[in-house]
Amino acid sequence: MKFDKNTKILIVGLGLIGGSYAEALSEKGFSVKAIDSRKEAIDYALEKGIISRGAAEPDKNLIEEAELIVFALYPHVFIDWMEKYSHFITPGTLVTDVTGVKCSIVYRVQDMLPEGVEFIASHPMAGREVYGVENSTCSIFRGANFVVTPTERNTPEAIELCEELGKTLGFAHVSRLSPEAHDDMIGFLSQLTHCIAVALMTSCDAPGMELYTGDSFRDLTRIARINEDMWTELFMLNKEPLIRHTDLFIGELTKLRNALKDGDTEEMKRMMRLSTERRARFDKPSV
Amino acid sequence: MKFDKNTKILIVGLGLIGGSYAEALSEKGFSVKAIDSRKEAIDYALEKGIISRGAAEPDKNLIEEAELIVFALYPHVFIDWMEKYSHFITPGTLVTDVTGVKCSIVYRVQDMLPEGVEFIASHPMAGREVYGVENSTCSIFRGANFVVTPTERNTPEAIELCEELGKTLGFAHVSRLSPEAHDDMIGFLSQLTHCIAVALMTSCDAPGMELYTGDSFRDLTRIARINEDMWTELFMLNKEPLIRHTDLFIGELTKLRNALKDGDTEEMKRMMRLSTERRARFDKPSV
Repeated sequence: MKFDKNTKILIVGLGLIGGSYAEALSEKGFSVKAIDSRKEAIDYALEKGIISRGAAEPDKNLIEEAELIVFALYPHVFIDWMEKYSHFITPGTLVTDVTGVKCSIVYRVQDMLPEGVEFIASHPMAGREVYGVENSTCSIFRGANFVVTPTERNTPEAIELCEELGKTLGFAHVSRLSPEAHDDMIGFLSQLTHCIAVALMTSCDAPGMELYTGDSFRDLTRIARINEDMWTELFMLNKEPLIRHTDLFIGELTKLRNALKDGDTEEMKRMMRLSTERRARFDKPSV
Repeated sequence: MKFDKNTKILIVGLGLIGGSYAEALSEKGFSVKAIDSRKEAIDYALEKGIISRGAAEPDKNLIEEAELIVFALYPHVFIDWMEKYSHFITPGTLVTDVTGVKCSIVYRVQDMLPEGVEFIASHPMAGREVYGVENSTCSIFRGANFVVTPTERNTPEAIELCEELGKTLGFAHVSRLSPEAHDDMIGFLSQLTHCIAVALMTSCDAPGMELYTGDSFRDLTRIARINEDMWTELFMLNKEPLIRHTDLFIGELTKLRNALKDGDTEEMKRMMRLSTERRARFDKPSV
């Protein structure tokens, strides 16, 4: 299969991310179709011109004619959908996703697909604190990372095509990780940070505090406004790495707390120097 | 004492914050003088036109003629300076500061000053991850909070003048707190967030991780690039509130971790809903 402007693309799940895919691809001249159970989402996307056709149910024809299908659903909805409708997908079709966890999804979906259909998983590391196709914008992909997570069952062609998809969507950096390395990394970089933001918000409620806050607290808790259904599901599907990283973090914070308690300023400064040195690596490349 | 463009203002300590005060005030037409032990800082500020006169030592004349003195020094340098030179300050002068902790400073400085000199403490809640007058910019005050922390020894006139100073500098919100309420609030909103950022950076060092990070991790650890001397000093001067808030936070994070471990998704969602609801209060007013 070739990936060019004639590729028949179907997006299943037209929420914030599915909608942003549709916008990015249609802006680049691709013809995108979509399935979403919310009829308003389909109507909105048709009206905005970010899809050329759509259906509010798993339309057999749309699925059969697709050459590349992107699933942008909650993990359990994705698995349910596969159980019910994956037999509609025709051999030669390439399937990818946007799911934020990989080990618990990738191997299972690869086992479910009909002969001749390949699933190459990927994770567009972008988002907003709002939901739905109505808030979609492909600007969230700019400067962001796109990770492809192949298994040994994937072909080099599918991996390359998926990387090409990430570049076409406008991601600044496209890379490859095993599902295991992905889940470990995401447990630290994304899931633990969300847990921290939530725990920070629930741990104190002095009235009027918002009048005294600086940017550091605002930045740190931006993600404390959280979709509880989606994130609870993602956390549960990545329990082991997330608990491990949380314990490591609590250990370091306790070390800093104890150094403060004991007046061990040398240890406090050592941790701050290490932190400063490591953080320098994470500056966003100017784009 | 009146506060207008004829007020003789002296800034002691021309670093990032002192320099930004000088810039903001000279832009508004005030004539600002400064003392800083770094001759390059004084030369730079003179050249940029953000001060009209300066000295690289505690110049007796500059101190004597000042009507409003702003101390923008590290806490221990501020106290040392007061011990050595406060007798140069003439009766009728109003003294303020920019120190990030209050209880350990305010009462002590009020005790040290000559008869007739009033110290009204304040905290401009703004900063950058870079240092020195060379990085000064009064744009950091825009949209930010300015807190005045009076004690019972302060006069209403001095409190009002200090609030006026905050508004003149360009702060979006000027408010009053007792030194105790300030330190408790700052222990949670600012110091704990810095501790979290540091512990997060020291707790994991997977190579190449920066290639996969999203904005949430970057935002959360922006402040992990930290001036270890200044923050160690500020933490040590606010030990009790900071340790108390750290323990509360670790307690909440542990609660979320245990809910995850036990598969208690209802508890996870409850915490996330509370977090989302509370976070809504902290959005920055659009300016």
